[in-house]
Amino acid sequence: MAKKEENKTQKIQIRQSNKPLILVTNDDGVDAKGVRLLANIARKFGRVILVAPSGPQSGKSHAITFTSPLRISRIHAEKDFLIYKANNTPVDAVKLAQCVLLKDQKIDLLLAGINHGSNSSSSVFYSGTIAAAIEGCLNKIPSIGFSLADYSSSPHFETAEKAAHTIIQAVLENKLPENICLNVNIPNIPLEEMKGYRITRQGLNRWQEELEERFDPVGRPYYWLNGFLIETDDNEDTDEWALKNNYVSIHPIQTDLTAHSYIKTMKKWKF
Amino acid sequence: MAKKEENKTQKIQIRQSNKPLILVTNDDGVDAKGVRLLANIARKFGRVILVAPSGPQSGKSHAITFTSPLRISRIHAEKDFLIYKANNTPVDAVKLAQCVLLKDQKIDLLLAGINHGSNSSSSVFYSGTIAAAIEGCLNKIPSIGFSLADYSSSPHFETAEKAAHTIIQAVLENKLPENICLNVNIPNIPLEEMKGYRITRQGLNRWQEELEERFDPVGRPYYWLNGFLIETDDNEDTDEWALKNNYVSIHPIQTDLTAHSYIKTMKKWKF
Repeated sequence: MAKKEENKTQKIQIRQSNKPLILVTNDDGVDAKGVRLLANIARKFGRVILVAPSGPQSGKSHAITFTSPLRISRIHAEKDFLIYKANNTPVDAVKLAQCVLLKDQKIDLLLAGINHGSNSSSSVFYSGTIAAAIEGCLNKIPSIGFSLADYSSSPHFETAEKAAHTIIQAVLENKLPENICLNVNIPNIPLEEMKGYRITRQGLNRWQEELEERFDPVGRPYYWLNGFLIETDDNEDTDEWALKNNYVSIHPIQTDLTAHSYIKTMKKWKF
Repeated sequence: MAKKEENKTQKIQIRQSNKPLILVTNDDGVDAKGVRLLANIARKFGRVILVAPSGPQSGKSHAITFTSPLRISRIHAEKDFLIYKANNTPVDAVKLAQCVLLKDQKIDLLLAGINHGSNSSSSVFYSGTIAAAIEGCLNKIPSIGFSLADYSSSPHFETAEKAAHTIIQAVLENKLPENICLNVNIPNIPLEEMKGYRITRQGLNRWQEELEERFDPVGRPYYWLNGFLIETDDNEDTDEWALKNNYVSIHPIQTDLTAHSYIKTMKKWKF
């Protein structure tokens, strides 16, 4: 049996400072290159606490865990920079950071990513990275999700680094309104080929699933979920167009899902 | 070792008919009272296939599973009514239904619920029920999520039944535009107290988490996620107001998350 430890709360008191307090998270897990790079960029702007899932949580969207207990543990500490791993999902990690570690302390900025793979079009619904940014936004924290459009282990991080730095600076200067967060997608190209920044809308493209049917050793079927994006909406104002044309896409997301323009039509329905 | 079965695809051929083909799902699991009631209501309108998670999947949002295989199995069959249980999440169930069972067959309507508990305000982000409706919408299926504002085992299902029947009929008559689905919240009151139907917007209210800290037998902390909705936005046009005032709330949700009105402002930012 393990040695009994002292019951000790995990709430931490962050050093008072004029520097912004920045929460960094992701969905690829705390050891992913992307989140470590993002934390290092964030350190140029403020005090950083990195709280991320202990392992990969891609595709976990805005899932939260309330049927089993959550845990969080510190794995690194230095001046103005702490790293924690948490279970389970990215949104769980944000809630643990905000409600356990930083209870009652104002978070000035939430950064999620840098995701390995793009989160454009309808990927915003599946992405744990974007969900973490939306969760920050729901809690009135200016929040940005960053994604690099590549799944290899050695993508053009120099482009992602430059873009993230530029956009973080712009957000700190311009502020974001409540209920709006940013979904940033960065093309995987050498920095010198990057043409600039585009404010975009979400391309209204959907995933076409390919559920590959296989059979286990006793002949029972099982399925691997896979798919590809059907690009029917790649107009010049979309995130898809920006990525394809070597621009960084900055897509403002709102947390009000209401189809306001349709309410008037629906009010004519008879019930 | 189990006996080897014949490798046999699970794709099914639904009987040709003029009656709508209706997919029913939920996040409380295939055995929940709410989903069985919804399937029975749906049977009055068409041929029904109920495909739902094998167990509770509340709070799973739009999560999908691609790191482990998916399974689906039939548990009931009669004329124009089939029931399947699927792993893991509600959105997985929708994808399995659409891409494995009903491959290439048009689904006329997707119904999710009836959820045990409301899905108003920011709950739309966490709910597996609403995610299933959004998933249907992304796939161009007219989709409705139903939630009954009560967690007890014997809520006022007669009110939910009446509301669901009325709204399904209205959707089949009026159709829904692409990229818009409905989030229906039903107050838990006797039918005679129900005042009618309101077309609403999403109340911009957030959850205040309470992560309760406990200590395991060896003194290590763990946390139970819990919380309550902070109601700062309960104007007469919101879903919250409707529920509190004994109306059924019909909230049209759009799958375009773009903050269109903010794009013009952001274009003035300097990068």
